[in-house]
Amino acid sequence: MNLLVPLPADNGSEIFSTLLEHPAARIERIVSRGQTTPEAQPYDQPQDEWVLLLAGAARLWLEDRGELSLAPGDTLLIPAHVKHRVTFTQAEPPTVWLAVHLGSA
Amino acid sequence: MNLLVPLPADNGSEIFSTLLEHPAARIERIVSRGQTTPEAQPYDQPQDEWVLLLAGAARLWLEDRGELSLAPGDTLLIPAHVKHRVTFTQAEPPTVWLAVHLGSA
Repeated sequence: MNLLVPLPADNGSEIFSTLLEHPAARIERIVSRGQTTPEAQPYDQPQDEWVLLLAGAARLWLEDRGELSLAPGDTLLIPAHVKHRVTFTQAEPPTVWLAVHLGSA
Repeated sequence: MNLLVPLPADNGSEIFSTLLEHPAARIERIVSRGQTTPEAQPYDQPQDEWVLLLAGAARLWLEDRGELSLAPGDTLLIPAHVKHRVTFTQAEPPTVWLAVHLGSA
């Protein structure tokens, strides 16, 4: 399995692919092509999430840290229940995220 | 924290950096510049390990699968206690791995 080649075809939505389902963690790839999180619907997750930007560019807003810009190679821990929103993703070339949801048993 | 820029200076050894210590998983970056695993000392780990090659090139031998070539974006689950050895890593540009050690509480 390769996370970068080929990327799934554009279907107008963010594309979530589960890479690993494990008692300790769920690992997924997210391919974004300009999509963002609606301002009124921030994520509020029950588990810690560790994020790595693999390709493209993105901005992420966290309620406790404000807006952060992410470049390929950048990592971030989003603690459980810290509200956050994706405020920008580069459409072309696409933005590719790796997300590790910790303790997804 | 960025995993790719800057890379740690070459000190002649593989360079292991812990990115996250979490009850559910330990995430680390490994920078390799030509190092391999001694044939007589394969890894035999008590936990499942999920690996992603971020940069460079590598080959990995697993006792149950033989030798695999890894390019950037390639992922692999190494189950607990499957003996394995790194048989090649590209030195320049350096090889960068992400390793998620699952259930490292």
